[in-house]
Amino acid sequence: MFRKVLIANRGEIALRVQRACKELGIATVAVHSTADTDAMHVRLADESVCIGPPAAAESYLNIPAIVAACEITGADAVHPGYGFLSENARFAEILEAHGIAFIGPTAEQIRTMGDKIEAKRTAAALGLPVVPGSAGEIRSEEELKRIAAEVGYPVLIKASAGGGGRGMTVAQGPDDVVQAAARARAEAKAAFGNDAVYLERYLATPRHIEIQVLGDGRGDAVALGERDCSLQRRHQKVWEEARSPALNESQRTEIYETVAKAMREMKYRGAGTIEFLYEDGEFFFIEMNTRLQVEHPVTEMITGLDLVHAQLRVASGGSLGVKQEDIHFNGHAIECRINAEHPRTFVPSPGVITHYHPPGGLGVRVDSAVYQGYRIPPYYDSLIGKLIVHGNNRVECLMRLRRALGEFVVDGVESTLPLFCDLIDHPDIANGAYDIHWLESYLAKGSGG
Amino acid sequence: MFRKVLIANRGEIALRVQRACKELGIATVAVHSTADTDAMHVRLADESVCIGPPAAAESYLNIPAIVAACEITGADAVHPGYGFLSENARFAEILEAHGIAFIGPTAEQIRTMGDKIEAKRTAAALGLPVVPGSAGEIRSEEELKRIAAEVGYPVLIKASAGGGGRGMTVAQGPDDVVQAAARARAEAKAAFGNDAVYLERYLATPRHIEIQVLGDGRGDAVALGERDCSLQRRHQKVWEEARSPALNESQRTEIYETVAKAMREMKYRGAGTIEFLYEDGEFFFIEMNTRLQVEHPVTEMITGLDLVHAQLRVASGGSLGVKQEDIHFNGHAIECRINAEHPRTFVPSPGVITHYHPPGGLGVRVDSAVYQGYRIPPYYDSLIGKLIVHGNNRVECLMRLRRALGEFVVDGVESTLPLFCDLIDHPDIANGAYDIHWLESYLAKGSGG
Repeated sequence: MFRKVLIANRGEIALRVQRACKELGIATVAVHSTADTDAMHVRLADESVCIGPPAAAESYLNIPAIVAACEITGADAVHPGYGFLSENARFAEILEAHGIAFIGPTAEQIRTMGDKIEAKRTAAALGLPVVPGSAGEIRSEEELKRIAAEVGYPVLIKASAGGGGRGMTVAQGPDDVVQAAARARAEAKAAFGNDAVYLERYLATPRHIEIQVLGDGRGDAVALGERDCSLQRRHQKVWEEARSPALNESQRTEIYETVAKAMREMKYRGAGTIEFLYEDGEFFFIEMNTRLQVEHPVTEMITGLDLVHAQLRVASGGSLGVKQEDIHFNGHAIECRINAEHPRTFVPSPGVITHYHPPGGLGVRVDSAVYQGYRIPPYYDSLIGKLIVHGNNRVECLMRLRRALGEFVVDGVESTLPLFCDLIDHPDIANGAYDIHWLESYLAKGSGG
Repeated sequence: MFRKVLIANRGEIALRVQRACKELGIATVAVHSTADTDAMHVRLADESVCIGPPAAAESYLNIPAIVAACEITGADAVHPGYGFLSENARFAEILEAHGIAFIGPTAEQIRTMGDKIEAKRTAAALGLPVVPGSAGEIRSEEELKRIAAEVGYPVLIKASAGGGGRGMTVAQGPDDVVQAAARARAEAKAAFGNDAVYLERYLATPRHIEIQVLGDGRGDAVALGERDCSLQRRHQKVWEEARSPALNESQRTEIYETVAKAMREMKYRGAGTIEFLYEDGEFFFIEMNTRLQVEHPVTEMITGLDLVHAQLRVASGGSLGVKQEDIHFNGHAIECRINAEHPRTFVPSPGVITHYHPPGGLGVRVDSAVYQGYRIPPYYDSLIGKLIVHGNNRVECLMRLRRALGEFVVDGVESTLPLFCDLIDHPDIANGAYDIHWLESYLAKGSGG
């Protein structure tokens, strides 16, 4: 096992990883920008290194500064958290070249899954169900029209290098497909410096269902159940649950087996997530995230596994520590992302948290790096904390979530807490009857606001 | 199920019960003394009623005021928490006479188990193992000497009405037994107004092991595993774990069966705890607590059951909702009672909590009713909160507890947090090698202090 791990991140995920390290007797190194000197992840680490000014490009994305921090402190491994450098293949390579372990998959696995077209091709080759569409980049107007007609309208045109919904357009028929593709190319060029696009069948009312996986890099891999992350706003997940209210046991068994087999074949190393759209009983691969997800705690709550412990174990050459047949799913868990944003406009609200009191008691977990008196800096994401609630079943989980939300105090900044208090009383949420468009449509109606 | 429950208590346990009520959709009524107007249990309740001045005898023990609060608010049931009126048979009777349900056992069960001699007699009749000793009160010097000789020295002389170690003396042989009994009688008279004493074999290095039970009042009952509460100071539990590091599976199965059978025969209603001393493979009944215990959360963590939900269910005439064969024990849990006391002298330290930050993350639960800026009143117990940690095994639980203790911030008052930080590094704690005298002896040595 590693002796000292540098955590190349900030906020709640830096603290999350630190907790796991401490629990395994591993020393921790925090890195921070000058804006984060008083941050909790700095206060609680064994050592800390300032790596640059507030702008992430000059600090949390500054590879030379982070490598230097490893060398100064003698860290033998780096955990990248999520975001920032977590899916940067070059970062993984540079660390390995310096004899420092990257706690994540191989650089090649990151690279393969980081390119949307290549990822889809790989997924299909591994036997994962993919959305019907172009095999790769669309190179001509003729090809565009032919494939769109084969797949059937409406179709979705997406940027190869895309993410977060940018460079994504829908075409309803042959009359608007050329124009839609041009718009997607222009957006892709502006956002990613790359105008390559591809095409897929457009799903009208899909759910976002993702499978958590864990591989040892030597051909052993398990599927740790699914999460339903359909409640999204502008492609940002807002509320996640494990497991999905939409699947039955035979659907679960089948997709778990398919995914675990693919990961074994790929010799995937570490924790990862295969994201699918799900509609009418069918799964369609979207992408693979080759890192820990924000929403990993809901999986931990129902499996009893500590995913960061597992990451550390496999990254240091250990085994998965669990067999597929020993994984049992216990109850239901829901995570709400509490952001420092206006609960309806989602305008960020940085500033000082004048009162902070997280809920407690049975079945309630809060992953947060804020404290009363903490000033949320304006430079990074606006996550105050994640409220994760477990119950013996979904109904109990929802009731417990309602009471936990009622206890949560965040004053001094706007927060999305009131949104969750509204959502939990909505019959569609109670019934689990939502797709990836539900939240946007709910917000557009101004309900409860 | 009840519509509205009045919680006749304060502090963390009032909040604990309130949480369970909210999770079941039951309205809550808080009662409070004038010293607790700003308390969390008042702030979070649906309604609250002031029942008297700070002194507990005039507020939290004031039966007429509490019954009046029920009538004013229309509460159909009362949860007594622990302490205060929770084991007061007359309170239970008065409530029932007013048509208000008492969430606990019958008045008769409370009364039987509230008298130490009667409780021991009942336990023996129910087949529970008891310490060899006098069948009841010792009435003469001749009887004292004869029974002590039969039982074998050293012997323990205890007050019939006793508790908390008062009226308890040890006699080493026939030379000091008369004097020891006289001292016990004098202490008992002073503390309880009753000088009746009885005699038992003195156990030199026992552990305190207790079994959590739950009965439906109609003859169904289950044993929810044991807790080891051997770490005590002046008979006050300080650290509790589930399950005990000292027992093997066959010992467990046997004592669970014995206890569950006794509870079925007794037609016990509600949650209760059978406390035993355990030495050299033998259990000896001490007493039964006919209420929820402070340390109930460790049982919840390893069974996945919400004991307060269960109390509410059976008190309203429902079933246990669980069969003995369906109870599975998952991992290990430890609770530390964080008190506002000096960590070595245990002198209470009331005052304002200037900084409060509880730990979070996977496997960590905090049950507390304090908040940053809260003033701990000097009138009641000094509990700041309970830190409860779960792990997949005892080693993981201890490592997680260590990191959680490291995150816990309580400033402005003295707290027992440093004591736990010392304890967790002691090899005897790591090995589970402690008896009920261990902590006193550790403290007397001044280790780590």
